Amino acid sequence: MISIHTPPQATDLGDVRVANRAVVLRHVRLHAPCSRADIAAHTGLNKATVSSLVTELIDRRLLRETGLTENRVGRPATMLALDGAPYAGLGLQIGADELVVVAVDVGGNRLLTWRRAFAAATAAPGQTGQALAALARRAINRVTGQGRTVLGLTVGVPGLVDADGGVPLAPALGWRDVPLAAELRRALRDPGFTVGVDTDANLAVLAEQRHGAYAGNADLVHLTGGVAVAAGLVSGGQLLRGGRGFAGEVGHVPLDPAGPPCACGRRGCLAALTGVDAVVRRVLPDAGQGGPVTDYLPEIDRIQALARAGDDPTLAGLAEVGRHLGHGVSVLANLLDPQVVVVGGHFAALAPWLLPAARAELAARTLAPQAGGCRLEASTLGSAASALGGATAALATVEAGRLPAA
Amino acid sequence: MISIHTPPQATDLGDVRVANRAVVLRHVRLHAPCSRADIAAHTGLNKATVSSLVTELIDRRLLRETGLTENRVGRPATMLALDGAPYAGLGLQIGADELVVVAVDVGGNRLLTWRRAFAAATAAPGQTGQALAALARRAINRVTGQGRTVLGLTVGVPGLVDADGGVPLAPALGWRDVPLAAELRRALRDPGFTVGVDTDANLAVLAEQRHGAYAGNADLVHLTGGVAVAAGLVSGGQLLRGGRGFAGEVGHVPLDPAGPPCACGRRGCLAALTGVDAVVRRVLPDAGQGGPVTDYLPEIDRIQALARAGDDPTLAGLAEVGRHLGHGVSVLANLLDPQVVVVGGHFAALAPWLLPAARAELAARTLAPQAGGCRLEASTLGSAASALGGATAALATVEAGRLPAA
Repeated sequence: MISIHTPPQATDLGDVRVANRAVVLRHVRLHAPCSRADIAAHTGLNKATVSSLVTELIDRRLLRETGLTENRVGRPATMLALDGAPYAGLGLQIGADELVVVAVDVGGNRLLTWRRAFAAATAAPGQTGQALAALARRAINRVTGQGRTVLGLTVGVPGLVDADGGVPLAPALGWRDVPLAAELRRALRDPGFTVGVDTDANLAVLAEQRHGAYAGNADLVHLTGGVAVAAGLVSGGQLLRGGRGFAGEVGHVPLDPAGPPCACGRRGCLAALTGVDAVVRRVLPDAGQGGPVTDYLPEIDRIQALARAGDDPTLAGLAEVGRHLGHGVSVLANLLDPQVVVVGGHFAALAPWLLPAARAELAARTLAPQAGGCRLEASTLGSAASALGGATAALATVEAGRLPAA
Repeated sequence: MISIHTPPQATDLGDVRVANRAVVLRHVRLHAPCSRADIAAHTGLNKATVSSLVTELIDRRLLRETGLTENRVGRPATMLALDGAPYAGLGLQIGADELVVVAVDVGGNRLLTWRRAFAAATAAPGQTGQALAALARRAINRVTGQGRTVLGLTVGVPGLVDADGGVPLAPALGWRDVPLAAELRRALRDPGFTVGVDTDANLAVLAEQRHGAYAGNADLVHLTGGVAVAAGLVSGGQLLRGGRGFAGEVGHVPLDPAGPPCACGRRGCLAALTGVDAVVRRVLPDAGQGGPVTDYLPEIDRIQALARAGDDPTLAGLAEVGRHLGHGVSVLANLLDPQVVVVGGHFAALAPWLLPAARAELAARTLAPQAGGCRLEASTLGSAASALGGATAALATVEAGRLPAA
C-alpha cells in the first residue's frame, strides 16, 4: 500500500522532546492512572527520558502524582494522572437559535456550558460578533476567577472559514466576507491567547474524536444538523480542510434539481432538503407561517411527540427526510469510505425516525457492499458538540507537546 | 486552526536516522546537483549528520557524486545527484483495452513502457491475472538483465481494492472477490519483492504528485477516465484511503436518477454518464452496435477528428458529457476543496471540448465562490499514469529512508 506524506522534516533534539512530551501526555490521558515504568514500557521511550519529561510536566502542572500505588509484582509505583486544571480552553458555537460557550481543562473536564438564546440567522453579523464577545467575556471571567489561565478560544461557524478566521460565506446566517476572528480579537481587546474561528463541523468532529462514542476512530465524519448541514471529515487520522479550508460542504451538494430553493441560491441541496428549517416545515405545516422559524427547540419537541404517538404523516415526513439524509451520506461514503458517520443536532434528536430510512438509502446508493461497512449513527454529544470541540481545539498546542507560557 | 494527527509516536535515534535519510534523498531529488553543505543549509541537519548519511547513500548507490563543482564563494564543492540506477520499481495497469507496464529507477528515470492489447472487460479474472503476470515477467527479465534489482511491483485496478490486495468489486471489469495480489504472487513464484495491488486512481494521483504538472500540490485529485471513473484523492498532503480502502468512488455517485444504467447496477452514475463507453455511444451512434466496444483508441480518434472539424452534433454531445463531468467534479470540490482536479484517460484526450462546459458547471454547483479556486485541468501524463504511479509506489520504502536489502 502506498502512502503520500507531507514532506519529511529534519528532526532535531528539541523536536524530539516536544514529540515525546506529546506521547507521554497522550499515554496518561488514555491510560491513567499509570506509572513512569508503564509509560516507558508502552511507548518505547527509555526510563530516563520518561522520568525527565514527567518531572517537567508535574512542575508545569500538566501531570500530577495521584499518590496511589497499585498491587503489582515488584515494589509499588507512584501513579500519574493528567492534571491540567490550571489551564482552560474555551469554545463557542453559533447555533440555529442560540449561542453556546463551553470551557474544558487539559484533563478534559468540562468547567462550564452556558447557552444564550440568539437568532443569528436574522441578526446582523456585527450584532452576532458582539453577542459572542459578551458571552466569551463572561466565561473568561468565570474561568480566570477560578485561578485558571485561558490558553485559547475557538468559535464554530456554520459556513466557509478562511485561513485568517474570516467567513467568506455562511448562507445559513446570511453572511458574506465577515472578518470574525479579527472582530472578536478587537472586542476582547487582544487577550493574551489565541482567538480562532473554524467551521462548526470541523470542531464537532474534533469533539467526536476526543469525547464521542467513536473517539479515536481514524476515519470518522460528523454531519452537523441545524440551519446548516456540513461535514467534519477525519480520514486516515487527519482532519481534512482542503486547499483553502472549504472542505466538508456536503450540505450544498445538489441532490435533487427539482428540489426546494436553498439559502445558497441553488435548488435541492442536502441542506435545503434536510436542514432543521426544511424538516420543521415539511413535518409541521403550520410552523413559521408568519415568517422564519427562529426557535426550533419547541418545534423539534412537537415533532418528537407526534412521532412517538405514531402519527402517520409525521412518520412519513421523517422517513422522506431520512431518505434524503441517506442520499447525502452515500456521497460521503462513496468518496471517503468512513467507518462511521455520526449525525448531530436535529438529526440526532430525530434519529429513531430518520436513521432507518437513511441507512437503507445509504446501502442502496453506495458502491461498496454494505456501504463499505460505513455505520450511520446519532451523536451522543448533544447540542454543544461544536463548542466542546472548540474548547478542545484551544488546547491543541499543549497536547502537541508545547508547554504553556510560564 | 486545529489539527488532528495520527497519534504521536515515540521517537528513537534509529527512527531519526531513517527520517533524516528521507530528508536528504528528497532534497537531492528536488534540488540536484547540490553539495553536502547545501543539504545542511536547507534542511537544518548538521554537517556531520549530512556527511554520514551521504556516505552511506553513496555506498548503497542511492546517491552519486557528479564530480562537478560549481563556481561559488569559497572553495569548490563536490556535487551530488540521485543515483538509484541499480534499483527499479514496476507498475502495471488494467486499461479499457490494454495492459500497461512501466519501470522506473529511484532517480525517476523511466526504464520501459510496454503495452499489450487486452480486453479485460470481457476476459475472465483468471485470464487477466495470467496476462498481467506474463507482462510482469517480461519486464522483470528485462530490468534484471540490465543488472538492476526490482524493489517492488504494484498493479492498478479500476475498482475497489482491500487491504490484502484483493478486489471485492470492479464493475467495469465484471469482477467480484478476486484475490489478485495473491494470484500474482503465486504466478510470479513469490519473487523476493513486494507485489501490491491498489486502485488505478490512487496510483494515478501518486504519479501526478511526483511527475505531473501539479507535482507537490498537497490538495490534488486525479480523476481517471476509461471504462471506470474514479478519483485518487490527496488532501493535506495525504492520500485518502478511507476505513476499508474504498475511498474515491465518485464514479458511482448517482447524478441523475433518470440516467442510463451503470455497470454497478444503479442508474445515472457519473461513470455511466461520462465513462469512455458512454462517450463513444453518445457521440458515435454507430459504435458498438454489434456488442461491447473493446477497442477505444480508434473511436476516440474519430471523435477528435469530428470535433476538430466542428461537427455540431459531436460538439453538442461532448458539451453534454462535459456538463456531467463538471457536476461530478463539483461533488469533489464541495467535499474536499482541492486546489486542482486533473482528469486523465479519455477526459484528457477530449479536454478541449469537455472542459469548458465542465468548468462552467463546476462553478455553478460549488458553494465556495469561484469553485473555491479549484482548477480543472487535463493530465499531462498520458495513458500510462496509473502504471507510472505503481512503479513509483514500489519505490516508496526507499524514499521513506529505509535502505534496500543489501
